[in-house]
Amino acid sequence: MITLSSDFGSPYPAAMKGVIFRRTDARIVDVAHDLPRQDVRAAGFWLRFVLPEFPPVVHCAVIDPGVGTERDAIVIRVGGHALVGPDNGSLVPPARALADEDSADRGSGGASSEADCRDAGFEVFVYRPESPASSTFHGRDVFAPLAAEVHETGISTIEEIDGVEPAESFVDLRFPEPEPIDGPKTADWTAETADGIAGEVLVVDGFGNAITNVPGTAAEGRDRAVVNGMSVPIVDTFADVDPGSCLLTVGSHGYLECDVREGRGDEAFDLGPGDRVEIVFPPTDDGSGDGLEELRNG
Amino acid sequence: MITLSSDFGSPYPAAMKGVIFRRTDARIVDVAHDLPRQDVRAAGFWLRFVLPEFPPVVHCAVIDPGVGTERDAIVIRVGGHALVGPDNGSLVPPARALADEDSADRGSGGASSEADCRDAGFEVFVYRPESPASSTFHGRDVFAPLAAEVHETGISTIEEIDGVEPAESFVDLRFPEPEPIDGPKTADWTAETADGIAGEVLVVDGFGNAITNVPGTAAEGRDRAVVNGMSVPIVDTFADVDPGSCLLTVGSHGYLECDVREGRGDEAFDLGPGDRVEIVFPPTDDGSGDGLEELRNG
Amino acid sequence: MITLSSDFGSPYPAAMKGVIFRRTDARIVDVAHDLPRQDVRAAGFWLRFVLPEFPPVVHCAVIDPGVGTERDAIVIRVGGHALVGPDNGSLVPPARALADEDSADRGSGGASSEADCRDAGFEVFVYRPESPASSTFHGRDVFAPLAAEVHETGISTIEEIDGVEPAESFVDLRFPEPEPIDGPKTADWTAETADGIAGEVLVVDGFGNAITNVPGTAAEGRDRAVVNGMSVPIVDTFADVDPGSCLLTVGSHGYLECDVREGRGDEAFDLGPGDRVEIVFPPTDDGSGDGLEELRNG
Repeated sequence: MITLSSDFGSPYPAAMKGVIFRRTDARIVDVAHDLPRQDVRAAGFWLRFVLPEFPPVVHCAVIDPGVGTERDAIVIRVGGHALVGPDNGSLVPPARALADEDSADRGSGGASSEADCRDAGFEVFVYRPESPASSTFHGRDVFAPLAAEVHETGISTIEEIDGVEPAESFVDLRFPEPEPIDGPKTADWTAETADGIAGEVLVVDGFGNAITNVPGTAAEGRDRAVVNGMSVPIVDTFADVDPGSCLLTVGSHGYLECDVREGRGDEAFDLGPGDRVEIVFPPTDDGSGDGLEELRNG
Repeated sequence: MITLSSDFGSPYPAAMKGVIFRRTDARIVDVAHDLPRQDVRAAGFWLRFVLPEFPPVVHCAVIDPGVGTERDAIVIRVGGHALVGPDNGSLVPPARALADEDSADRGSGGASSEADCRDAGFEVFVYRPESPASSTFHGRDVFAPLAAEVHETGISTIEEIDGVEPAESFVDLRFPEPEPIDGPKTADWTAETADGIAGEVLVVDGFGNAITNVPGTAAEGRDRAVVNGMSVPIVDTFADVDPGSCLLTVGSHGYLECDVREGRGDEAFDLGPGDRVEIVFPPTDDGSGDGLEELRNG
Repeated sequence: MITLSSDFGSPYPAAMKGVIFRRTDARIVDVAHDLPRQDVRAAGFWLRFVLPEFPPVVHCAVIDPGVGTERDAIVIRVGGHALVGPDNGSLVPPARALADEDSADRGSGGASSEADCRDAGFEVFVYRPESPASSTFHGRDVFAPLAAEVHETGISTIEEIDGVEPAESFVDLRFPEPEPIDGPKTADWTAETADGIAGEVLVVDGFGNAITNVPGTAAEGRDRAVVNGMSVPIVDTFADVDPGSCLLTVGSHGYLECDVREGRGDEAFDLGPGDRVEIVFPPTDDGSGDGLEELRNG
């Protein structure tokens, strides 16, 4: 089985399928081809969300704003899976998730950086074909054939593919971490005890849900929050509020998201990818946090 | 084979695919993942349109505005097929179609109601897992695993699955029925003889075709109608009118639909799901129905 | 394997899948179902782009503005592939590509015309079922069953299918050819030497890239051009210009396309399918073409 992910829209991915079927009779499974265009961080987010659900297979994921530049093609081997795509960081969050190292996914501000393969927790290979592709469509001309070859050769013997060799480094990608806000009470901040957290929007999904980097655990036991000055309920399900109402909920990815029932959260909260989100929780029963009261009613 | 239908957009359904492939090597076939969001009636309409074309397989269809509430998960067994999804009525129209009981699909106004399983014409099972899922993504966490288990266990032995037992009742869904209009001449109305029919729009498809609940037989032998006061031709095919022109035709689902060639019928006719549609046919050769003349030229 | 292409959107193609799976357990591969609606030329372009990437299989492609009219259903056999669809020209460009006759694809202005099967370079069969389908959904009722039957019968023995017989003619489709412009210096125009070329937009893809009929070879060795009076760089990759900038590049289909990095080329260049595109190259080092200077700065 080979899964395909891209930002190519339609009908470009079909050309990749044809190329693969010329080389193998593996099953092809579409993950998505409408991932946010040329958005490496969104790709990393969604691939981390989806790929760990699969049994160990080959995943070909091409979100590649650097196509035509010097960036390498890589294959990552982790937990029986193989990830094939450009060396731009997009494959790293799913690789960490597959390596069960999510807890180590701690922030460098969302920027890509160079990382050493020896500490990665997974194996990275670089692919340098003898005759470099000149095309603008590396999905069809580089990555699809490489994914087919990884499938045919076997994930455990990637090294045997011509042009594949262990990489010394790779472009890393770590999502930014939310930070405690609002003064001394947050000095001993943990996700469970924070009274105020500043995070940012990682991605907006197709329905306008603005998904943040704030873990859902931060809202445990809370039923209301002030998000960028707007007071909204924290609910388990959309059905808990009226149509058109804003809400904060924990999405299936485990993060807080800013949503509207039967509407678009990104518009109602005026939030897009990368925007700062300040989430302040009202005072708890023990009287702490009174100072937040006015924010709460903002 | 397992078919997948949802209103999840992208890339959420891919997580369901991964979950299924971890449990079975069944073929997965996408029906659609852009069904009208949280619209149980539209789901029922489209599933009834598509699923009976398939050979007997497992169908997992998740349009689930009640996710997170007390609604049950159900499996319907009918004609060798199994339908897996939430107990909200969306699975009932395709179940009736598969039971070859379409003729019994007579109106209660489109509302959902409670029905007794003994009269259903198909078997309904409820699924109550030991440890209830807390997630907001039951497509991935409840229905995908259940569909995989139904496939592995076999449709004829659904009862053997842990947590599955015969249901006593289920949420029914029947589409509204069109009604004769326009006075005494419609007293002996049948689909074939009606001079005026009031129905409603069931769904609007992706091209803007406003599909009504009026059966195509109502327009047999007619070449023109007045739809909500607008006189339009009744044609067999779009090519029979000029680009941009309004028309009434019988869609592949068997119902009259309000369309525009190379345009959107919903906009031209100002119609959306649930809107009332009055269709009046001009007088026939025997001179009846002169009173409709002015409507005809409205 | 059967590939499916259409302009049906969703969920109509799923009905075709069901129909096919009732008749064969062939693998079904979606090429695209959002091809430009009822646009035979765009269908020909995209099918020519995608289908030759596949190994020899059955391709069912239904872009069919003439559904319900007298147009025939055809099957084309070429290079081990079978193309199933309406006789409107849409299958001809991929058939020529599969016949390795692309070089013969020379222009009659993009119009469809009647062609003789004896010169085609591929075999054309017409399909006339005993009981003609009356439906508006020939994708489900004619082409899907026919594709399944071609698959089951075998591409080499299409003639054995009831209702299939060799065609004497078929509706041809050839894309228009670009022409040299700008006076005597273009008298001995070839794609390599032209200083000015007038072509047209064949299709606009989902990202707004306006793809022309001017072959990329026309721009070899050039780094700038004046497109309809607008001076833009010719680049290998989007990354060579700033976000929001216009550019001319050679797409993966081999033609020049008018694009914007992180934007829509069709809007920035004000171009749609069928629009004329004049591309003028600045003078080269040998001093020729000074007269183009003002156009260049237009």
